[in-house]
Amino acid sequence: MKIGFIQFAPILGDVQATIRKIDGLIDQSKITDILVLPELCNSGYNFNSFEEAWETSEEIENSIFINYLKSKCKQLNLYIVSGFNERDNKALYNSAILIGPKGYIGKYRKLHLFMNEKDYFKPGNIGLPVFDIGLCKIGMLVCFDWIFPEVWRILALKGAEIICHPSNLILPGLAQKAVPIHALINRVYIVTANRIGSEGDLSFTGLSTIATPMGNILFQASQIKEETVIKDIDITMARDKIITKRNDLFSDRRPEEYLLLIEKDVKG
Amino acid sequence: MKIGFIQFAPILGDVQATIRKIDGLIDQSKITDILVLPELCNSGYNFNSFEEAWETSEEIENSIFINYLKSKCKQLNLYIVSGFNERDNKALYNSAILIGPKGYIGKYRKLHLFMNEKDYFKPGNIGLPVFDIGLCKIGMLVCFDWIFPEVWRILALKGAEIICHPSNLILPGLAQKAVPIHALINRVYIVTANRIGSEGDLSFTGLSTIATPMGNILFQASQIKEETVIKDIDITMARDKIITKRNDLFSDRRPEEYLLLIEKDVKG
Repeated sequence: MKIGFIQFAPILGDVQATIRKIDGLIDQSKITDILVLPELCNSGYNFNSFEEAWETSEEIENSIFINYLKSKCKQLNLYIVSGFNERDNKALYNSAILIGPKGYIGKYRKLHLFMNEKDYFKPGNIGLPVFDIGLCKIGMLVCFDWIFPEVWRILALKGAEIICHPSNLILPGLAQKAVPIHALINRVYIVTANRIGSEGDLSFTGLSTIATPMGNILFQASQIKEETVIKDIDITMARDKIITKRNDLFSDRRPEEYLLLIEKDVKG
Repeated sequence: MKIGFIQFAPILGDVQATIRKIDGLIDQSKITDILVLPELCNSGYNFNSFEEAWETSEEIENSIFINYLKSKCKQLNLYIVSGFNERDNKALYNSAILIGPKGYIGKYRKLHLFMNEKDYFKPGNIGLPVFDIGLCKIGMLVCFDWIFPEVWRILALKGAEIICHPSNLILPGLAQKAVPIHALINRVYIVTANRIGSEGDLSFTGLSTIATPMGNILFQASQIKEETVIKDIDITMARDKIITKRNDLFSDRRPEEYLLLIEKDVKG
């Protein structure tokens, strides 16, 4: 099967312009199965106020951006994971959504918020879902989640074979260095779709990455260019957790020794 | 402060020869605070039988190897972490021990056993202790533990600032690639002291590594040479878990979302 990403700069506050950009960057001549877009793709990132975040948000059921993605997925018979500024009642979430040829499938809400996101978004409250799309099982994380090894592990334990990771990374190349290791120690594919360009005082670092379950970088994009990249993968590599004939990545775990990971106040 | 390792090949079944080797490799002219030695340093690794593992094991209270390390730590005013084939009553453990200028301090017993180790050793049963030696707080892991992100995280959450990682790595360079990322995502120093050479059908991969809390490789040894390496570090880097003025590596965690990590049967 084939997975890929579009690395580009969504347009802050102009979903129609962003859609035109994506439409120009989806390579209709190259077939793919799964395509990952950056974080907060329908809105842009660097809001000046809650009002700006609110005005650029959309409800999943009533979203110009999602309607566009649905039509594209149907037309090209593909799955798209995208960052999404999600409005739900009075709250906003920094979400990732999964769309397929038959429409909207599901979402993840970012658990670990970065910097000013804490002013605009509520922290994720629907856990770490994994979606079986037939071809494979997909988990989603968003950007700053990368520094928490717990969430990669949980998605892998729940059966995720590909973790799609829409991002607007600004720290210089750190996540892009860590992602192949998260892939290695969890035996999953990871697609980090990062954005480029800048908004206000923030510059984004590109280097979108596809990492294999052996910890190799299948492809890493440039820091600054728009790029649509599609790669062949062997999904069976992510299903096999056997390390040696006597070692298995999961059954060798010692969960009874890991209790501290769930203690709320570790500095007690 | 200064930390380092000795990369060398312990002699299977000949603790006196191993001691002579270490004695020749400890650089007495270069002062260090902490020195890390490879896994199962008192015995060698690739046993042919439980009897061989048993005969080369020692009790902590009655060990030629530990007595040597104690005298060396006293003489040179340093701390040593070493892999140790530990006999306790009728059981063997693949342990790491911590010795200081005033003698024996404590131990860790490898939680995740690799390959035939399962025939010789009992899995660790004393958790993941952290030792405050005044200069800094030390945690220990052994070799194959490297692939389990849970244990690095737990040691960091317990306050470890330096994780000493005696190893006899055979997988080609994977742990050495992962160690800097474990250091980065837990903001700790890591010293992986790997061995070189071969025993029977096993070849060990060297590349002993000192990694910084920013995920950089401060030093990586060769694959095949004996090397004694001492490096200056800034331990305050491992004490600061602040990522941005609004993000902290530990207080941003969402432990209530991590429950799956401690479930015994994740494939339910």
